[in-house]
Amino acid sequence: MSEVENTVVDLCRAARAAGKLLALAPTDAKNDALTRAAALLRQNAPQILSANRDDVAAGREAGLTGALIDRLTLNEDRIDGVAEGLVQIAALEDPVGETIQSWRRPNGLEISQVRIPIGVVGIIYESRPNVTADAAALCLKSGNAVVLKGGKEAIRTNTAIARVLATAIAEAGLPADAVRLIESTERAATRTLLKQSEYIDVIVPRGGPRLIEAITSESSIPVIQHYAGVCHVYVDSEADLAMAQRIAVNAKVQRPGVCNAMETLLVHASVAEAFLPTAAAELQRCGVELRGCARTQALVASAKTATEEDWSTEYLDLILSVRVVDDLGQAIEHIGRYGTGHSDAIVTDSYANAAAFTRSVDSAAVYVNASTRFTDGFMFGFGAEVGISTNRLHARGPMGLRNLTTYKYVVRGSGQIRE
Amino acid sequence: MSEVENTVVDLCRAARAAGKLLALAPTDAKNDALTRAAALLRQNAPQILSANRDDVAAGREAGLTGALIDRLTLNEDRIDGVAEGLVQIAALEDPVGETIQSWRRPNGLEISQVRIPIGVVGIIYESRPNVTADAAALCLKSGNAVVLKGGKEAIRTNTAIARVLATAIAEAGLPADAVRLIESTERAATRTLLKQSEYIDVIVPRGGPRLIEAITSESSIPVIQHYAGVCHVYVDSEADLAMAQRIAVNAKVQRPGVCNAMETLLVHASVAEAFLPTAAAELQRCGVELRGCARTQALVASAKTATEEDWSTEYLDLILSVRVVDDLGQAIEHIGRYGTGHSDAIVTDSYANAAAFTRSVDSAAVYVNASTRFTDGFMFGFGAEVGISTNRLHARGPMGLRNLTTYKYVVRGSGQIRE
Repeated sequence: MSEVENTVVDLCRAARAAGKLLALAPTDAKNDALTRAAALLRQNAPQILSANRDDVAAGREAGLTGALIDRLTLNEDRIDGVAEGLVQIAALEDPVGETIQSWRRPNGLEISQVRIPIGVVGIIYESRPNVTADAAALCLKSGNAVVLKGGKEAIRTNTAIARVLATAIAEAGLPADAVRLIESTERAATRTLLKQSEYIDVIVPRGGPRLIEAITSESSIPVIQHYAGVCHVYVDSEADLAMAQRIAVNAKVQRPGVCNAMETLLVHASVAEAFLPTAAAELQRCGVELRGCARTQALVASAKTATEEDWSTEYLDLILSVRVVDDLGQAIEHIGRYGTGHSDAIVTDSYANAAAFTRSVDSAAVYVNASTRFTDGFMFGFGAEVGISTNRLHARGPMGLRNLTTYKYVVRGSGQIRE
Repeated sequence: MSEVENTVVDLCRAARAAGKLLALAPTDAKNDALTRAAALLRQNAPQILSANRDDVAAGREAGLTGALIDRLTLNEDRIDGVAEGLVQIAALEDPVGETIQSWRRPNGLEISQVRIPIGVVGIIYESRPNVTADAAALCLKSGNAVVLKGGKEAIRTNTAIARVLATAIAEAGLPADAVRLIESTERAATRTLLKQSEYIDVIVPRGGPRLIEAITSESSIPVIQHYAGVCHVYVDSEADLAMAQRIAVNAKVQRPGVCNAMETLLVHASVAEAFLPTAAAELQRCGVELRGCARTQALVASAKTATEEDWSTEYLDLILSVRVVDDLGQAIEHIGRYGTGHSDAIVTDSYANAAAFTRSVDSAAVYVNASTRFTDGFMFGFGAEVGISTNRLHARGPMGLRNLTTYKYVVRGSGQIRE
């Protein structure tokens, strides 16, 4: 093994050992570590900002785009925001130790299903250095050790932040190895990490589809995927059209670059004439480019032609594809065919149509009369967000702290044996 | 693609389509299919037994061991047992549609987490032809389509059973493609199946460790592993020694060839002299070979020497390793080091020791004063068993019908948009 590989394996092994201790740590100690980390981040802001300036300078030299430089750049306010995030995570309920369900068997055995940490989480992320603190805090609070692998453009900043976290954890009497950053920026480091199934229980990638695909194909550890969404709003024949327009505009415009933004608007033919011209004008006023089917174009002359590819494209931008459908069934079929099972909404006043839509649309979040933009751990009330899973196993949709846990069964008896 | 590959891909694609319909099927229709299948199995017993005789004859010719021939062989009684199993699964509660939790957000959004089928399950199994019906029934009841791939030695029997199931499903008005057996016995068929992540959501292997390892390494679909168990019973200083002996004997002897049987007995040094000679005599009377540490051998002269390898060996046989430990901490450490996180028990009357053990032992099932043999879907009250998962994600321990489901969030609003 190369030195890089050895270092990664050692770090993962140490994380496993630390995770076993952290799994038993009292909530108070974990919260203490988090509040200490928040204070230390603020206190060490000058050093972190200095490291960050070096990263940014190197990034500019390497020709990073303006958007990437922006994501990479920290300032006092952003550090303060990161620290505040840690304080908020400290305030959340500890999921560890929760009894999910319990029951008594006829033979007197008492069975409890008890929530416990997963063990060790590997987080692989791109340029945003705030993920270093956020992800570590979520893992720590849920009793998991974490191995972090950030983007190489943020390595100095990430290293400075990770050291602060390790100090805070040690000061709280917890094992510092519970949060470790892989400091090597070689590709071999990630490759090695993805093979440590003995020490790492799950990989959570935070980044674009290419990162997630590469990780999934290379990993021998289960990966929780956070793919993006081709989300729909369907305006039913029975819709309140003013509400439908508010929801459509919000779902598209409020923050177009995120996975729960609407990409396709479906409109029932019977309301298309009443709805589309006005709604299209409002969307266009907000800067949205429209790409429509023939029936849409007949009502909105300025709409471009939507191609087959448009229906399955996640624009993440102020672009919207629009289709007039014959009925609810065609809307459901369209969503099943082109959607990604992320977030889809119906606007309707019909009880039966709402029921059919929520039953038949197989997406992580199915909405009636609300914007798709609510698919989010904070909006769902989970307090913090690990991400939005597009997996069907283990966790689906917005992930809170509980999704970083598993369970064990504790069985209490009085001498029962099996006949 | 070869013809075999094409056939497998077609079958998986058809299963996906059928799964979408089955996910929406009412409980009554699924139960109707199961009871019809039970009746048809009994009715078609002569044809199934004839196919089975051909498999058995071919197996003998191929030199299968007696144990394999036994697993492969059906008779009227076994078919009746399989049919009865389907009737029992029909009687279980349908997990689909259950509201797991629901809450209202401050903005009035009502969020429900609703249980839905996973989608399409791939089951890969070895020689027992009863798995064809059992596994199909569990998937059907939980609203999942299933693609079955059995062992080649049982191909004629499996084909006969699968055809009966398909007939019953069609008669109940459900899509027959929801249960399909891969009839090719070529290795390429399994390899192709394991790559259909577009159509198959999860693979559940039913078989020995080599089968599971091979599948896990080859699969691009998540695998729910059912590895075996190195299970412990720890007799604490505060144990009721008569109870401890009953539990130890039951955990080892009642059915030694299964994953929840005890493989290592740990005894606190302070009770070793009072406990071990009598318990050892009883175990030996039941035919158990003992392999002990030096302190065990000092008390039980007939015990062989346990090697380092013994502590991590799953005998699945009437062999038991025995170690005298200094204290509870050493017992917990031993279990953490050599155990497989399956099922481990403490026998004690101490409240504090029971609490420390259940907290610190990180196994799927942790027992106080009961035999490890209860780790089982039926014994836990789940009614049926999909298997016993040794994964930490999605499902852990005994798996009931609920473990073949995922969930979606249904969000009901009245025009909410995100600010």
